[in-house]
Amino acid sequence: MNSKDREYWIQKAIEQAKLNETPFGAIIVDPEGRHVGAYNTTSKDGPAAHAEINVIQLMSQLDVEDPRALTLYSTVEPCPMCMSAIVWAGIGQVVFGASIDDAANFGKQLHISSKQIAELAWYPIQVEGGVLKDECKRLFT
Amino acid sequence: MNSKDREYWIQKAIEQAKLNETPFGAIIVDPEGRHVGAYNTTSKDGPAAHAEINVIQLMSQLDVEDPRALTLYSTVEPCPMCMSAIVWAGIGQVVFGASIDDAANFGKQLHISSKQIAELAWYPIQVEGGVLKDECKRLFT
Repeated sequence: MNSKDREYWIQKAIEQAKLNETPFGAIIVDPEGRHVGAYNTTSKDGPAAHAEINVIQLMSQLDVEDPRALTLYSTVEPCPMCMSAIVWAGIGQVVFGASIDDAANFGKQLHISSKQIAELAWYPIQVEGGVLKDECKRLFT
Repeated sequence: MNSKDREYWIQKAIEQAKLNETPFGAIIVDPEGRHVGAYNTTSKDGPAAHAEINVIQLMSQLDVEDPRALTLYSTVEPCPMCMSAIVWAGIGQVVFGASIDDAANFGKQLHISSKQIAELAWYPIQVEGGVLKDECKRLFT
């Protein structure tokens, strides 16, 4: 995956976030570029309805054989709830924009990095942050 | 809360688990004993549909002013996904039966204790395990 690809999909995640005027959008992409997207709906659906949880609900639409081939893109680093859900889902790659530390300037956060959770998984997960970080941080303002 | 109360509600969580023939059931109780219950539905609803996530979806039915007054009872120690969701929900007490280590004998687990996640919260959460532990462990067999 080249850096242009990563930026393209983070941009798609940003578009999801803007659809509901939240800082949080997420996309799951398969190797052929098929994708599903979602945004944070906690104000309507309760505290677990983060963008990543919502998009994981949609991943069966992609109909992949091995979820390790999937990449989840998120405007903000997945919190431990979402990162654990990503592990339960078996997703192999995670790319995000702003970090949990960035988000903590605008609200409460659980300070465990997504890499710390990924290291506890029973299969390898690649995690990369900081893609279009400034654009993602601007979603909070 | 006395130990009889705790056992009563863990028993209710066990009943939830048995409804769907999974080891995982959860109940949220308010100070007046009003409660909602749910079980694991991952086989139908995807990897995030743990009992605790499902019961948190129902907690608005309890209509409490401050969720810190609520107690969540679970047959098994909440995984980091569920424990983080409990923090996002603002729930004040957690009681469980079998531990993550117990559950790891029967399937993959993310080894972060619920107390470790609770310590990262911005409000105090009481966590107690081992209530009707043997009955809860038997749900796995």
